[in-house]
Amino acid sequence: MKEFDFIKSIKQSTYSQPSLMKGVGDDAAVFRQGHADIVTAVDTFVEGVHFTKKTMRAYDVGYRALAANISDIAAMGAKPVMYLVSVVFPNTWTSEERLHIMNGMKELAQEYRMDMIGGDTVSGDTFVLSITIIGYVHPSNVRYRSTAQDNDVVFVTGTLGDAAAGLSILLNQVDGIKNDRYFIHRHTRPTPRVTFAKALHTIDRATLNDVSDGIANEATEIAQASQVDIYLYDEKIPISTHYNQFSPTNQYNWKYFGGEDFEMLGTVARDDWETVQLAAKTTGVDVTAIGTVMNGSGQVYLEKNGTTKPLPKKGYQH
Amino acid sequence: MKEFDFIKSIKQSTYSQPSLMKGVGDDAAVFRQGHADIVTAVDTFVEGVHFTKKTMRAYDVGYRALAANISDIAAMGAKPVMYLVSVVFPNTWTSEERLHIMNGMKELAQEYRMDMIGGDTVSGDTFVLSITIIGYVHPSNVRYRSTAQDNDVVFVTGTLGDAAAGLSILLNQVDGIKNDRYFIHRHTRPTPRVTFAKALHTIDRATLNDVSDGIANEATEIAQASQVDIYLYDEKIPISTHYNQFSPTNQYNWKYFGGEDFEMLGTVARDDWETVQLAAKTTGVDVTAIGTVMNGSGQVYLEKNGTTKPLPKKGYQH
Repeated sequence: MKEFDFIKSIKQSTYSQPSLMKGVGDDAAVFRQGHADIVTAVDTFVEGVHFTKKTMRAYDVGYRALAANISDIAAMGAKPVMYLVSVVFPNTWTSEERLHIMNGMKELAQEYRMDMIGGDTVSGDTFVLSITIIGYVHPSNVRYRSTAQDNDVVFVTGTLGDAAAGLSILLNQVDGIKNDRYFIHRHTRPTPRVTFAKALHTIDRATLNDVSDGIANEATEIAQASQVDIYLYDEKIPISTHYNQFSPTNQYNWKYFGGEDFEMLGTVARDDWETVQLAAKTTGVDVTAIGTVMNGSGQVYLEKNGTTKPLPKKGYQH
Repeated sequence: MKEFDFIKSIKQSTYSQPSLMKGVGDDAAVFRQGHADIVTAVDTFVEGVHFTKKTMRAYDVGYRALAANISDIAAMGAKPVMYLVSVVFPNTWTSEERLHIMNGMKELAQEYRMDMIGGDTVSGDTFVLSITIIGYVHPSNVRYRSTAQDNDVVFVTGTLGDAAAGLSILLNQVDGIKNDRYFIHRHTRPTPRVTFAKALHTIDRATLNDVSDGIANEATEIAQASQVDIYLYDEKIPISTHYNQFSPTNQYNWKYFGGEDFEMLGTVARDDWETVQLAAKTTGVDVTAIGTVMNGSGQVYLEKNGTTKPLPKKGYQH
């Protein structure tokens, strides 16, 4: 099959986004946006680096890759609306697997009424999936990581470390893990926090980072971009039921440096903390205050068992 | 080096596009565009499929990949303004080669005042470069391939088959080819026809396709999208000096099915043909009338030596 025929063969018969003038089928897609700012990012997934066929089905690979991209858009306070896909398929991939990849993306895309507006597929030795995502956001609601201030509350949605635990269960094939299907699901089918992030729209100033590389890394990015220090309290870090069945070392590594929980880490003025809690409630998400912003120079500290130490930036290494 | 650090390390210190609110350095880039339509496409290049290190230096790989993307934007009548890059680097690539890839893109980007606004780099077994490009165009100047009409003039810029000839010279290492450096340059450093395409802005209706897969394929795309037939005249197809030194079979295959000349194939009303010629003159590009549009059903015909036969769609197979 020729390069672009596959994308044409799976092109949508109708599009959801009224701003889209032309989707798949010309040299490029065309859209129009007079009111909102346009937000865009690219994320790439490589077989053997980000996943293996042993740990993830083709459908989940597509689903999870798009979820990661949507998560980036959510972390800007924006609404995901369109995406472009570039795939390198090895000859060993069946046409069924190729479709599953696309269908995994499609399921999540439909949830957000997102349109696939372009892409290309190429043959190659290694499977590579690269997604470019486009979102819209009202200019006053863009969430830059550079706006944290002294005395802000640091918060995080959901629980941390679950996705890394799930991956570990898949890789090591250990039996007898309590809630194993929950942990695996957190790894294979993460939920981007789009509705929660958008529900913060009444708040003037907030930073948001999606947890794609562990909160130690995400907190450092906010601290450095805002030139503040961030103090995190170990006892406050939210973990799920049965998370404490894992070894203390794993628990520590996964919740601070285990990437890809795709929860939302953020900071807001103390006066806005109640609004954050309300936003969480109305969107069905848990949110926990886990730290404080202080004047500083871009460092993250962890308070644990009465002592405070710098938390290394070391994020998730694939 | 961590995934995203490479992109951060080569991020621009200043940006050229005033519509850009945020480039590299947050979860996503942000831009604003209230007047123009936004045009976007993705294109992917794989080592061993689209090029080999034997035929192309890293710098040229970057240059050519971005040129191909810019060409898609030009074929929509749009101005290229920004791009995102996703690269899979094998461990065998030196940091010098990695920089060369980026610098090849940068040279061409600077020519158009384009900004690199995001990207990511990942390790993997095979080199893969995927570029997402963004352009702007006034809504009345978008060039869809679906607007060709009966009696339109079919035209093409420059000369055809040169890039395929250049690739063949590189692959076969034949000596004694006249103008060999010209042909190789046409393969490694194609010139996207941005200024020519934009100079057509006074014309109400025109189709444009960039020649990335041979004119047989590009003409078929226009014919099918517009539901017309296209007649091409073999004797009119523009070829470069010394092109006739190649075998008749190669000449035929390269000019009709040899992809990647990145010339512009288009159709306009007969009354606008003079304007096209003027636009070519003022932008320093040759343009040749090579055929006619007729009422029909999406077929392309070639008139050669007094006989007319369907021209197969068969494009360039990597």
